[in-house]
Amino acid sequence: MHLNNFSKLNEIDKFGMINFIEEAPNYLRLTLNSIKTEWNSLNLKKYEGLEINNIVISGVGGSAISGDIIIDWIWEKSLIPIIVNRDYRLPRFAGEKTLVIAVSYSGDTFETLTQFYEAYKRKCILFSVSSGGKLKEISEKLNIPFLKVKEGLPPRAALPCLLPAIAYILSKFEFSISLSELEAAANKMDEIKKECKFSRKLEENLAKKMALNIIGKYPVIYAFANMSSVARRIKDQINENSKTPAKFEFLPEACHNEVEGIHSLEKENFCFLFVEGQEKMEEEIIKAFKEVLRENGFINIYDVPVKGEKKIEKILSSIYFGDFLSFYLSLASKIDPTITRNIQKYKKRISEEAYKLTNFFTHSIL
Amino acid sequence: MHLNNFSKLNEIDKFGMINFIEEAPNYLRLTLNSIKTEWNSLNLKKYEGLEINNIVISGVGGSAISGDIIIDWIWEKSLIPIIVNRDYRLPRFAGEKTLVIAVSYSGDTFETLTQFYEAYKRKCILFSVSSGGKLKEISEKLNIPFLKVKEGLPPRAALPCLLPAIAYILSKFEFSISLSELEAAANKMDEIKKECKFSRKLEENLAKKMALNIIGKYPVIYAFANMSSVARRIKDQINENSKTPAKFEFLPEACHNEVEGIHSLEKENFCFLFVEGQEKMEEEIIKAFKEVLRENGFINIYDVPVKGEKKIEKILSSIYFGDFLSFYLSLASKIDPTITRNIQKYKKRISEEAYKLTNFFTHSIL
Repeated sequence: MHLNNFSKLNEIDKFGMINFIEEAPNYLRLTLNSIKTEWNSLNLKKYEGLEINNIVISGVGGSAISGDIIIDWIWEKSLIPIIVNRDYRLPRFAGEKTLVIAVSYSGDTFETLTQFYEAYKRKCILFSVSSGGKLKEISEKLNIPFLKVKEGLPPRAALPCLLPAIAYILSKFEFSISLSELEAAANKMDEIKKECKFSRKLEENLAKKMALNIIGKYPVIYAFANMSSVARRIKDQINENSKTPAKFEFLPEACHNEVEGIHSLEKENFCFLFVEGQEKMEEEIIKAFKEVLRENGFINIYDVPVKGEKKIEKILSSIYFGDFLSFYLSLASKIDPTITRNIQKYKKRISEEAYKLTNFFTHSIL
Repeated sequence: MHLNNFSKLNEIDKFGMINFIEEAPNYLRLTLNSIKTEWNSLNLKKYEGLEINNIVISGVGGSAISGDIIIDWIWEKSLIPIIVNRDYRLPRFAGEKTLVIAVSYSGDTFETLTQFYEAYKRKCILFSVSSGGKLKEISEKLNIPFLKVKEGLPPRAALPCLLPAIAYILSKFEFSISLSELEAAANKMDEIKKECKFSRKLEENLAKKMALNIIGKYPVIYAFANMSSVARRIKDQINENSKTPAKFEFLPEACHNEVEGIHSLEKENFCFLFVEGQEKMEEEIIKAFKEVLRENGFINIYDVPVKGEKKIEKILSSIYFGDFLSFYLSLASKIDPTITRNIQKYKKRISEEAYKLTNFFTHSIL
């Protein structure tokens, strides 16, 4: 599929994923504006003056990735550990000095709901974020501070709404978060949009060109541990939008095992995407790693563009490029980016069993 | 290569990796016995009565995996967060109330050395573990408690020496670690050894049979988040021993994105290895996930055997099976399991640059 045939492309993208992607910087700015009013309406007396030893962001999939982004963002600044917990159980250490933010875009993810309820029982400093659903319902019933974000998006397109909501909560407890940096990041996303938007022709659109370079190949995405949210998000977006297998690994860890596993890869079937390093040392590691790849006969090696100076600008600009890339990869493969049949099948199969086994909705509070 | 042709197989395994693997349960028991004497020789006065808020295990590759195992082991019990840090920088939060264990089997890994030195400067409650090298040298110079483990193993074969050393240190600060459980796990490893050892013929050796089933395929290993050390270790061992690409992902997260990326995989080129779930809910999630795989046309789906009742028994028995599996996979592919050319190339390239840039060895203390 030629990526300049706009009417044909629109036919494939039946549910308009491109609109959600192109609106992302605006969603981010709108949420930053609206969240303040929401926050002021919360009753936070019970949380005043509490000491916090650690932070858990509870969620899975498209909701959890915002937690990874936060960790990368403040990795060099935060004085307490932050953990993203993608399970249906809360880690044992979470207690009265733990700030827990339960995030589920739909509000109906059973993994997040069970973590939320456990955090409630353990008297954690608990907040929740969703567009509605059961998480909203039980938060209100249990008097847990709840932030509502814009409804009606595919969960993976809700990142620019969930991220500022989580960041806003954290900024009240963890002073290394600066919301103005998020605004600056939205501006960097605008730069990516200008370069990669749908109406921009293939010939001058890096995301379209890269999509055509990697189509039919198995993408392997590498980033440093402190930018691993980018590699993970691009991998997830390629899975969900493009229905294409992908993997990510982080550096320098990959240099200590992964690099040995490329031995028997079929050279033309794989491609490698690198997310730029932040420091001289990282550049050297990437250089050494790429050299080993080239010596092993690989030629499909690409760099994900990264914009800005501040960490969150770099994270969100490269993630945003990945959103466009995975979108064009889906269109080039003639696949609707929005529909996710296997995830729906899984969710349908597991939901009844989950609620029965975790005994969540039979609990007396509801 | 037929896996009953013992003399031919011995020719491929030039450096005797099989001996290291078969000795693993004994290494574990020997270290447990010797570590107590070592511990008693340490001067720990400065650490007496200190409060600990969190724990960082610093290392990469075959040294870091022991940290992952510890986290999975005490996930349901530990009252403080534990993090494995595979970078050359220490996380910002690590300070005077952080227990840092720097682990490098060789003692010369620059990532670990730079973390160690940073932890020293920040006055963390610092320990180090290695078989020798610079880590031993500078620990002695700086008067940092150091535990020495058995020398002369390939780093990935040193897991049964590193793990008990780390566990021993932790058991003095974090009371959810029971060393007797490690001994019980060594016995479960003996059961795996009986079933999977080199002298046991293909026909009655599950590890050999599975190796022949997955040879030439791309293994994808799935485990629950609380057993992810197993999936990661098997992936790393397949990379390093078998020089075969592999990936791991954890559940239920994979059900929320990964499962969509299998769409375009060539059915016969991939195989899926599942590490058993611990609970009824986990069994249901694995069942639902496997059903989606089967509906998508995949037939190469296998279970990694897991033995024992206690968590650490399950972790080490399934990891040990993976050690045998990756070993037989290398022999079946006629590849020497011990030699790791790409890792050596990378290390050689990076080492000079690393020491120059991180400015480690020019520092006045040395």
